[in-house]
Amino acid sequence: MSTESFTAVANRTPGHVHIVLIATGSVASVKIPLIVKELLQHKRVKIQVVATKASQVFFDSARLKAEHGVNIWQDEDEWTASLSWKKMGDAILHIELRRWADLVLIAPCSANTLAKLAGGLCDNLATSLLRALPPIQTDVEQASLIADRPGESTRVEVWVFPAMNTLMYEHPLTAMHLKVVKETLKYRVEGPIGKGLACGDVGLGAMTEWKDIVKMVVDHYRLERSH
Amino acid sequence: MSTESFTAVANRTPGHVHIVLIATGSVASVKIPLIVKELLQHKRVKIQVVATKASQVFFDSARLKAEHGVNIWQDEDEWTASLSWKKMGDAILHIELRRWADLVLIAPCSANTLAKLAGGLCDNLATSLLRALPPIQTDVEQASLIADRPGESTRVEVWVFPAMNTLMYEHPLTAMHLKVVKETLKYRVEGPIGKGLACGDVGLGAMTEWKDIVKMVVDHYRLERSH
Amino acid sequence: MSTESFTAVANRTPGHVHIVLIATGSVASVKIPLIVKELLQHKRVKIQVVATKASQVFFDSARLKAEHGVNIWQDEDEWTASLSWKKMGDAILHIELRRWADLVLIAPCSANTLAKLAGGLCDNLATSLLRALPPIQTDVEQASLIADRPGESTRVEVWVFPAMNTLMYEHPLTAMHLKVVKETLKYRVEGPIGKGLACGDVGLGAMTEWKDIVKMVVDHYRLERSH
Ligand SMILES: Cc1cc2nc3c(=O)[nH]c(=O)nc-3n(C[C@H](O)[C@H](O)[C@H](O)COP(=O)(O)O)c2cc1C
Ligand SMILES: Cc1cc2nc3c(=O)[nH]c(=O)nc-3n(C[C@H](O)[C@H](O)[C@H](O)COP(=O)(O)O)c2cc1C
Ligand SMILES: Cc1cc2nc3c(=O)[nH]c(=O)nc-3n(C[C@H](O)[C@H](O)[C@H](O)COP(=O)(O)O)c2cc1C
Repeated sequence: MSTESFTAVANRTPGHVHIVLIATGSVASVKIPLIVKELLQHKRVKIQVVATKASQVFFDSARLKAEHGVNIWQDEDEWTASLSWKKMGDAILHIELRRWADLVLIAPCSANTLAKLAGGLCDNLATSLLRALPPIQTDVEQASLIADRPGESTRVEVWVFPAMNTLMYEHPLTAMHLKVVKETLKYRVEGPIGKGLACGDVGLGAMTEWKDIVKMVVDHYRLERSH
Repeated sequence: MSTESFTAVANRTPGHVHIVLIATGSVASVKIPLIVKELLQHKRVKIQVVATKASQVFFDSARLKAEHGVNIWQDEDEWTASLSWKKMGDAILHIELRRWADLVLIAPCSANTLAKLAGGLCDNLATSLLRALPPIQTDVEQASLIADRPGESTRVEVWVFPAMNTLMYEHPLTAMHLKVVKETLKYRVEGPIGKGLACGDVGLGAMTEWKDIVKMVVDHYRLERSH
Repeated sequence: MSTESFTAVANRTPGHVHIVLIATGSVASVKIPLIVKELLQHKRVKIQVVATKASQVFFDSARLKAEHGVNIWQDEDEWTASLSWKKMGDAILHIELRRWADLVLIAPCSANTLAKLAGGLCDNLATSLLRALPPIQTDVEQASLIADRPGESTRVEVWVFPAMNTLMYEHPLTAMHLKVVKETLKYRVEGPIGKGLACGDVGLGAMTEWKDIVKMVVDHYRLERSH
């Protein structure tokens, strides 16, 4: 991705909102490029995308990187890429991304990743990063506060946007997992909404409209458009 | 597998029992060809086999397909095969298989797949299909009723046949997982039975005899032999 | 690894302590060679190493095998290696290792493997072996008793040494998983300890010092140094 390992200290910019956007294997990952592009129309925004293996069929990583200059991190970057960990003292990618982030958006969040979060599993980059996050209270009063320390974010919020087939959503374990994610992990959950889904079913399960996701971020951090 | 994507609407036959047979990584998957062959000796039966990666060492998929003309679906068929999802509007295999099925047999069900079902994980075709099934009451009175709508099954039953080493079966989490699968997901669980196992241990853990599995299906749907 | 499949009956030596050392994807797996080497300085000790895929970046398996003659078992040995299971009657590696073992050390135990153990998942050799272990009471009075039957260990203890980033350790699910592992599975959990970690964080999360792990084994089984 570059000639140096990614570290929080080298990549955080004081006064900016550092957003990790996690894409998972829901068809709603087709919206990832739109979310990235629209967020980047605002001042003080930096983005890193983390993509699960299953998510990658839904958007064109190379093009997204070329057009917007964002990194799209994959599991290989943690383990086998030339800049991944080789010896004691080297940067550990999921830890550096956690340090870098002020906000983690899981948009879309698949049923599978939701189950992994509720079960504490961390067998890929996305879930390892999340497993290394301390839960916080999502407190609207404090929310506009952006950590200004260059080296590390002190307060990381996680917002989850479930997106799945209606019957997957109605599966009884979905509600149980969402409860753990909200109450134990203190993540903010938004959606899903009802509409026609990619599979042809109609019902609750679709990801919150991508424009609304962007708007939530913009409102929360009082971001201004660049031009 | 064919020149067209699999869809429920094109592959359901009114008046037939549509059976998805899931094979998992238990040595009892050596019985898969026998179960398929015997079920197909009956009228009004259609079968799709879904095989986890670990199950595939235990039977010869190519031969099963050649001899009985059944599809053996693998994870690649969902993701990378030429007929897998490429763009919005394409069929999604695990959703189509769920729509197609009147009955899902997990025979054998490994300890690992059982744990995944109880945890709501769906990282392969077999568990994605199951995650997209609404739980129903297994009601013997209603059971002979077969959905006659060509496009989609309205009532899908799931029968689970655990098969594992005796000590795996005695592991305290097995009972907890079976409880979730029965009470929360409303699956029917049959067996395991006691006998000498492949690993040389003797005790409870073996899959219900494959002939008894076939008989349960035959009795439940009042199937008649073809000749 | 050799020209014959591994079986407990052919590889147990009466009067010896048979130790399976499981390495997982924590950076503390760099200590695996030191633990092996130091344990082997004692009489009556035999070791098999089982390494998860993620652990293998942290130590040099080939060198460890060459220098100390220990087997380093990987997932491939269960499935695809020339000596893995091919037909009914063949040895099943995770079952044979369970029969062989008097003591299983998970050192280090990653957050992910801990979550899998608490969830009963067994999708690799390490967790399949553990899933096939009956829980026992870790009773210090009985502990010096070593099974003398050549064919199979009758009493297997499991000791867990968690090792993870401080914030991973503070994640609320860690405590819940440790509780299941201790109370339901009856594993002994030691550590983690506080110190500077590989990722640069300081806090609770580091694996118990490798020398202390060796000392616990030596004391428990009253092992004597060879020379
Ligand atoms: C074409 C296609 C579309 C899918 N859409 C969804 C979806 O919207 N939501 C979901 O939870 N799973 C969906 N799945 C299933 C997931 O991709 C699957 O469970 C995968 O293992 C998720 O992996 P991840 O959670 O690591 O990204 C879809 C699968 C395919 C093949
Ligand atoms: C030769 C062999 C036989 C096995 N037999 C069983 C079994 O009978 N039951 C079981 O639960 N696991 C058994 N396993 C372990 C599973 O294959 C393993 O847990 C795997 O990850 C299951 O994957 P799946 O649930 O995705 O099919 C066996 C493994 C091997 C190598
Ligand atoms: C360089 C590096 C160091 C890691 N150190 C740890 C660690 O100390 N503890 C931990 O729980 N996970 C750690 N991880 C994350 C795990 O390797 C990851 O969750 C993996 O999926 C664990 O797989 P396993 O449990 O099958 O071994 C580390 C990852 C990398 C890339």
